[in-house]
Amino acid sequence: MDKQQKIAVLGGGSWATAIVKMLSENLETVGWYMRDSQSIEHIKENNHNPKYLSSAELDANRLDLSYDINETVSKYDTLIFAIPSAFLESELHKLSISLENKIIFSAIKGIVPETGLIVGEHFNTEYQIPIENIGVITGPCHAEEVAMERLSYLTIACQDEEKAKKMATYLESWYINAKTSDDIIGTEYAAVLKNIYAVAAGIAHGLGYGDNFQAVLMSNAIREMKRFIRKVHKMKRNINNSAYLGDLLVTGYSTFSRNRHFGNMIGKGYTVKSAQLEMSMIAEGYYAAKSAYKISLENKAKTPIIDAVFAILYEQKSPKKEFKKLTDKLD
Amino acid sequence: MDKQQKIAVLGGGSWATAIVKMLSENLETVGWYMRDSQSIEHIKENNHNPKYLSSAELDANRLDLSYDINETVSKYDTLIFAIPSAFLESELHKLSISLENKIIFSAIKGIVPETGLIVGEHFNTEYQIPIENIGVITGPCHAEEVAMERLSYLTIACQDEEKAKKMATYLESWYINAKTSDDIIGTEYAAVLKNIYAVAAGIAHGLGYGDNFQAVLMSNAIREMKRFIRKVHKMKRNINNSAYLGDLLVTGYSTFSRNRHFGNMIGKGYTVKSAQLEMSMIAEGYYAAKSAYKISLENKAKTPIIDAVFAILYEQKSPKKEFKKLTDKLD
Repeated sequence: MDKQQKIAVLGGGSWATAIVKMLSENLETVGWYMRDSQSIEHIKENNHNPKYLSSAELDANRLDLSYDINETVSKYDTLIFAIPSAFLESELHKLSISLENKIIFSAIKGIVPETGLIVGEHFNTEYQIPIENIGVITGPCHAEEVAMERLSYLTIACQDEEKAKKMATYLESWYINAKTSDDIIGTEYAAVLKNIYAVAAGIAHGLGYGDNFQAVLMSNAIREMKRFIRKVHKMKRNINNSAYLGDLLVTGYSTFSRNRHFGNMIGKGYTVKSAQLEMSMIAEGYYAAKSAYKISLENKAKTPIIDAVFAILYEQKSPKKEFKKLTDKLD
Repeated sequence: MDKQQKIAVLGGGSWATAIVKMLSENLETVGWYMRDSQSIEHIKENNHNPKYLSSAELDANRLDLSYDINETVSKYDTLIFAIPSAFLESELHKLSISLENKIIFSAIKGIVPETGLIVGEHFNTEYQIPIENIGVITGPCHAEEVAMERLSYLTIACQDEEKAKKMATYLESWYINAKTSDDIIGTEYAAVLKNIYAVAAGIAHGLGYGDNFQAVLMSNAIREMKRFIRKVHKMKRNINNSAYLGDLLVTGYSTFSRNRHFGNMIGKGYTVKSAQLEMSMIAEGYYAAKSAYKISLENKAKTPIIDAVFAILYEQKSPKKEFKKLTDKLD
């Protein structure tokens, strides 16, 4: 392993912090860009991120922190983006230097609102990054358990197998197992869709449906995800692998998931606006539902769960009535 | 619907009680055999089963209760067995009348210890019930949620589609959706194997593995289940249907599951004997692990999770070491 490999993480949230922690188990120096200079000072002095995943112990000596995205991008060859998709474009607009020849990994689970694209496609079409220089880092993985050093499995996807394998090596440690895949489109869509299904699980819970129904919902969700992804990018994949089914389960069954929490409020009768105000954070599944619904329509995929979530979130349909209709379509 | 259809339930536990409740939404009279005459008297007076699922309201006027299995079997054409598999044979030995011409449905999720067979196969080979007269009633379904009248989905499997459809009609109501299948072997094995995976989930939890690992474990479990069932009974089936994946999830993610609880104690260091004493009930997954391991070996199925559970429960291997080895086999 080349311990001097030039890898940087962009983003200051929980998942970014978890990835920095994983990398710094292996690398002598990890580049780390975040906007918040106060957090940077805190990390340098106290060895943990004050705002997100503060339980994760970091070794500040190994971190090359910067609040200047251009500085970080100029110094590192491989960039891992872990910025919420809603803020990605405003961050990229700060760049005065080119992303040419950079290897870009997306650890973002969402759709870029400005283009309606998954992150890999966004970098490919908007920034002309060749597809073989784009990768995806996906779970099933709650950042909180990385902080606790509990055994977690990642999937690293890249069409260029060597790049996936290399990144896997840098992320692996005694508590991280990293597998590789060549399905960058499918794994990224899975990470996006699972947030919509987590919203659906939350709505169901908020409406009073129980664990029996939740199991039926998840069993239908994975079949729906398979149909959707096959329409969008047909290739041989086992939808029950950890990057698809595992990622769906860790989110759909998590009571800490923002998306599930958001759905739960909707199911309990909150409006979208009041639920978002209450949460003070935006659930990725909210944006994902809009894009996924559109893509599903265009591709003529059969996606009753996405359709129901879309109707509830964007067409002000009654959650109770939409879910009653949905239950007749599930099996 | 023929409201005078002669259907009886055999067994006095939670799942038997839930099935009686479902049937009595539709039938004028439901036969019900249980050993405990005191419970019968209590049900007649108070309209609920005192020992199991006591929150389920029953209508005693519609119940034809008996503590004489021969009386119940002689009066009814269709018999739903919901007796724990460990006690099935001792109950069947009480029979002085023939099961010939009866339609037998199994609502038992286990392996008959005396023969090592799933219940349908047991009736077929030991009691010469023709395969087309044997059916399976399976979840995902916690009996507790039936008592609360929360929407639940059942799968009714029979090679004779008409018999499956008829049974589905009698079980359905505003809170029960019943689907049919012709895969009696596969659905029954799924119901058996999921208990072993719930034990595995419990062991993992007891050892300190977290939600990230649990998602990986379940994602591997459904793939293992698919391989196992395909080896035992090859036919076209979608392993992600509710009867397989849904049933796995409702048990694997339930914190109320006996199997998960049993596994959790094993993971925490209890011996099998002390865990069983502590629980005062036997986890079906304990017996299932032994039979499934044997069947897996015979059929050369690749089943690392079943193998690990077997080694821990029957060969006194260290849960910590076995799971360490297992984690390297999962992906």
